[in-house]
Amino acid sequence: MIQRWLRFNHLGKTCFGTLEGNKIRIYEGDMLVDPRPTDQCATLGEVKLLIPVVPGKVLALWNNFHALGRKLGLEPPPEPLYLLKAPNSYLNPLETIRKPLCDGKVVYEGELGVVIGRTCTNVAEEDALSHVFGYTCANDVTVADIIQRDPTFPQWVRAKGFDTFLPFGPVIATGLDPAMLVVRTMLNEEVRQDYPINDMVFPVQKLVSLISRDMTLHPGDMILCGTSVGVGSMKPNSIVEVEIGGIGKLRNRFE
Amino acid sequence: MIQRWLRFNHLGKTCFGTLEGNKIRIYEGDMLVDPRPTDQCATLGEVKLLIPVVPGKVLALWNNFHALGRKLGLEPPPEPLYLLKAPNSYLNPLETIRKPLCDGKVVYEGELGVVIGRTCTNVAEEDALSHVFGYTCANDVTVADIIQRDPTFPQWVRAKGFDTFLPFGPVIATGLDPAMLVVRTMLNEEVRQDYPINDMVFPVQKLVSLISRDMTLHPGDMILCGTSVGVGSMKPNSIVEVEIGGIGKLRNRFE
Repeated sequence: MIQRWLRFNHLGKTCFGTLEGNKIRIYEGDMLVDPRPTDQCATLGEVKLLIPVVPGKVLALWNNFHALGRKLGLEPPPEPLYLLKAPNSYLNPLETIRKPLCDGKVVYEGELGVVIGRTCTNVAEEDALSHVFGYTCANDVTVADIIQRDPTFPQWVRAKGFDTFLPFGPVIATGLDPAMLVVRTMLNEEVRQDYPINDMVFPVQKLVSLISRDMTLHPGDMILCGTSVGVGSMKPNSIVEVEIGGIGKLRNRFE
Repeated sequence: MIQRWLRFNHLGKTCFGTLEGNKIRIYEGDMLVDPRPTDQCATLGEVKLLIPVVPGKVLALWNNFHALGRKLGLEPPPEPLYLLKAPNSYLNPLETIRKPLCDGKVVYEGELGVVIGRTCTNVAEEDALSHVFGYTCANDVTVADIIQRDPTFPQWVRAKGFDTFLPFGPVIATGLDPAMLVVRTMLNEEVRQDYPINDMVFPVQKLVSLISRDMTLHPGDMILCGTSVGVGSMKPNSIVEVEIGGIGKLRNRFE
């Protein structure tokens, strides 16, 4: 059964629950480990949406889609290539992506986010998906011009780590097959990205397995699967939406 | 007045306090924001030392010392170059640095850690030090061979993000002038690094100011100032110590 988990402020408290149509069923306990339904409900109009989980770390893949690699003339890498997104970049659904103080175009990258549910260290590929809690929509915002500005040190972490540069949510969907998902990104209601997750060089189970050999993944940690073709820059007042069928739609404005 | 702050387990509880000789004065409240002394004490022998703070993020500088830059033939960079250390790399004082599953030499890098005390966004250089809580000893452990293994994407985050790759502590010292500090790293009691902090390309106040233009720094966040000459690899059962006069000595074994 597919469930869609939300975090939100309601009557001055931070709560979580599941979406049932327009209604939110409020839970108690720990969303990832021990969620218990209550008999309380709220409506979407009554709450302020928050990021659905507060990750301890977010790993972001580079060059993980065949289509984008072909366009950029890159070979599929022999192992996952990744960086970390800074926690100050996390941004709630519907909130505004801010232009940083530095110069450079600010680009959107619509991505699938994989939220870990159980601690994993060196987990086998065939066990990996049982350590995933669910899936969310993410925008891996980037100042692309910064990355290669210094010839001695590519600034991946900085280019992707500015405040507000990682909107994600509004829900985490559980019980889905990630291989069937399609990511669509709309800039001002025009479709700019529309790519299947099954074009990934490393599918979700491989990513979780291989990364967990390097770094222990904890509940709430998130892996951004990388983006594909159609990345572009945002102008002041642009509205960016990342929609993944079966999960939901993330919407943010650029300042 | 210089104070040395510790975190530790004592009688089954996580506590913090200040070091007074061999005695620990136990505090309550929040170490960074509102520490309040109690009349309780413990001795060092009674406690298990923990990392002195749990950072929300750790930024690690690259090419920030003139002496190492000269040795490597690198110009001083026009702006701070940094990456993020993964939270799974945090390691308590006296605990064991583990060899990762991948191949490659594992090197120590003795460094000064700057612990943020007050939230800063775009803070001016002259106000920056008032946002610092204190200073600690850190070992920025790295599998150097991984960094340039892929010709298309330098793997800084991965090479420095393995489990146990960031021992730091045992204390955070407050009330020090960072420009006067000297970092010494001992491998099996032999001095391998001995360099002054005033050789930094970007001194502490510049680092805090410039990084806070990109990323909001929160209480507990840590900046590793980068390392200088004398980096080397660890062999099984190596003991590595990072000592900074006026702060203390961090000691860990390599598996």
